[in-house]
Amino acid sequence: MSQFTEYPKAAEIEASAWINTAKPLSLAQMRGTVVVIHVFQMLCPGCVLHGIPQTQLIRQTFSEKQVKVLGLHSVFEHHSVMNIDALRAFSAEYRITFPIAIDAPSTSGHIPKTMQRYGLQGTPTLILIDKLGRLRLQHYGKIADMQVAKLISELVGEQQDELQLETATTTLDSEKDTQCTDTGCQL
Amino acid sequence: MSQFTEYPKAAEIEASAWINTAKPLSLAQMRGTVVVIHVFQMLCPGCVLHGIPQTQLIRQTFSEKQVKVLGLHSVFEHHSVMNIDALRAFSAEYRITFPIAIDAPSTSGHIPKTMQRYGLQGTPTLILIDKLGRLRLQHYGKIADMQVAKLISELVGEQQDELQLETATTTLDSEKDTQCTDTGCQL
Amino acid sequence: MSQFTEYPKAAEIEASAWINTAKPLSLAQMRGTVVVIHVFQMLCPGCVLHGIPQTQLIRQTFSEKQVKVLGLHSVFEHHSVMNIDALRAFSAEYRITFPIAIDAPSTSGHIPKTMQRYGLQGTPTLILIDKLGRLRLQHYGKIADMQVAKLISELVGEQQDELQLETATTTLDSEKDTQCTDTGCQL
Amino acid sequence: MSQFTEYPKAAEIEASAWINTAKPLSLAQMRGTVVVIHVFQMLCPGCVLHGIPQTQLIRQTFSEKQVKVLGLHSVFEHHSVMNIDALRAFSAEYRITFPIAIDAPSTSGHIPKTMQRYGLQGTPTLILIDKLGRLRLQHYGKIADMQVAKLISELVGEQQDELQLETATTTLDSEKDTQCTDTGCQL
Repeated sequence: MSQFTEYPKAAEIEASAWINTAKPLSLAQMRGTVVVIHVFQMLCPGCVLHGIPQTQLIRQTFSEKQVKVLGLHSVFEHHSVMNIDALRAFSAEYRITFPIAIDAPSTSGHIPKTMQRYGLQGTPTLILIDKLGRLRLQHYGKIADMQVAKLISELVGEQQDELQLETATTTLDSEKDTQCTDTGCQL
Repeated sequence: MSQFTEYPKAAEIEASAWINTAKPLSLAQMRGTVVVIHVFQMLCPGCVLHGIPQTQLIRQTFSEKQVKVLGLHSVFEHHSVMNIDALRAFSAEYRITFPIAIDAPSTSGHIPKTMQRYGLQGTPTLILIDKLGRLRLQHYGKIADMQVAKLISELVGEQQDELQLETATTTLDSEKDTQCTDTGCQL
Repeated sequence: MSQFTEYPKAAEIEASAWINTAKPLSLAQMRGTVVVIHVFQMLCPGCVLHGIPQTQLIRQTFSEKQVKVLGLHSVFEHHSVMNIDALRAFSAEYRITFPIAIDAPSTSGHIPKTMQRYGLQGTPTLILIDKLGRLRLQHYGKIADMQVAKLISELVGEQQDELQLETATTTLDSEKDTQCTDTGCQL
Repeated sequence: MSQFTEYPKAAEIEASAWINTAKPLSLAQMRGTVVVIHVFQMLCPGCVLHGIPQTQLIRQTFSEKQVKVLGLHSVFEHHSVMNIDALRAFSAEYRITFPIAIDAPSTSGHIPKTMQRYGLQGTPTLILIDKLGRLRLQHYGKIADMQVAKLISELVGEQQDELQLETATTTLDSEKDTQCTDTGCQL
């Protein structure tokens, strides 16, 4: 029984563009480090009030060498006004330094491609990927700093050459809602 | 010596458009009630994190009959992405119900017209206008809920037919900064 | 129909001792000013985390001339350890400057005398008394700064020689609980 | 060069009594697990507002098997009122479940014995001890949840049979003060 049966491989990010990075990035090239992805929309209150500040704190707390921090701007509503220029202004005003991928628009619907691949419920969502590129957490809504730091630290501590079977992929769902709340914006 | 010497008449809002109201509003038509204006930009972190929630709380705490609450979207940076469509989406996502005026762009510079008339320092700014249409507070940056409620209540309690000479117009300046901080975005 | 039928006269404080004041105080001698009483126990988490900081903010926001602020230490549990020496140490550590009355112990039960007179539900309770010595608010549990400041300001604005019939005495009850919670400690 | 030269052995707790435990505990018996000690005084505002809630969150976030959480009540002022009965009432009101040691009073001064052994600056102080019983963090004042969880997780991830030379013992000092502030109470 392989570890890949236990934990699914994290789907690659399909971005139409990137900001805060000189060239496009890929999860594939980050193999060997832990990856934190904050999936957000710049007009989602739960993202702006909680998710973005927490992601900035993650960036400050963990070393760049051990933990890659990425934003993923996955717009599923108000597409016309949450464009790349608006995102650049948002990133500048909020002093975001980590790279942000713009989730590639779907050719057939309003949900962008990476969001579809992961089957995300909405924004904000926190995604944790281990050194072997496996999806270890996909959490929609608020999550405590202490819990996040514990999970990231555990992934950092894992040895690549060991099988990691004891920690289960966790998806903690928040309450259902069809609109944006303080928690987030749900599909 | 007239009261109008003591307290300056609040300049009229010059709006290019309004949202959350069926027709354009004016300060002139609000004479007889206290008016609270929250001057903001939708991409200003201090506005989103503090000013907007506080303004919503003001709206919930005071009666519509006694206190008019308005937003004034005074964009002085990133004009192209903070347009009316983006503002409509922002207002919807943040569940803002009070009317918002879009400050009319200047023909000669990046500072919009109402902002110029008031000589504002930046966003967020809280403006309080008394029943006689006089400017009673113009505060840039954060201000405590308790202080705001005290000031508004005092204006509500004033009799229109009395001269109101005892309370001074207050402008509390925050520290100087040429960029957006947690406090706000300064000119 | 007199106003005294509308609003009950606030019962006098029966204190076994006072701290932070050179001599014992009485509500009777405060007639003509608004009085704010924060009823607390020094080991009540809701009092320490919310009530005490809010009361200190009230003291800072309103003038001593217009608003008297008092603490009332109404112990109904753990009597032996919440004695006057402990309270003095607590007051010093939390840098409380307003006078605190120690509610006189009952001769027949664990609920102190002033607490009984007011029929309080527990701690923290906020009591507001108007210039005529009438009880205008008795609120158990948390209450927002903006709401408190509005209520106090309205009482400050009232003319002593006018009848004050429009504002109802409000008792906002929190959820029932037989223990201390984040909200407070209930009888 | 031994690891014991790198990291000092954590001094044993000298307690006059314990609460929330059937029998006295010792650091010696906790060898093999990470130990978190929150040093506090029940009348220290910084402890009550920040330290105690954070310690309770640590207890909820980490497993009892991997991380032992202890309180250490180190009284260096107001000794008479911060006695064991008061502490029991405090612990009950704040719903503290972890064991609390009462630091043994000094025979010669006001600073209790364990506090002296560790050379603590005041309260609150967070102490982290690794599986080998070595002192790895001694932090006076506030510290962010994310930072604390990262440090604890790193200690949990360490193998007992490996030498742990890379992480330095950290003492982060807050600003000097001779009184209790929001940060804590300093010696």
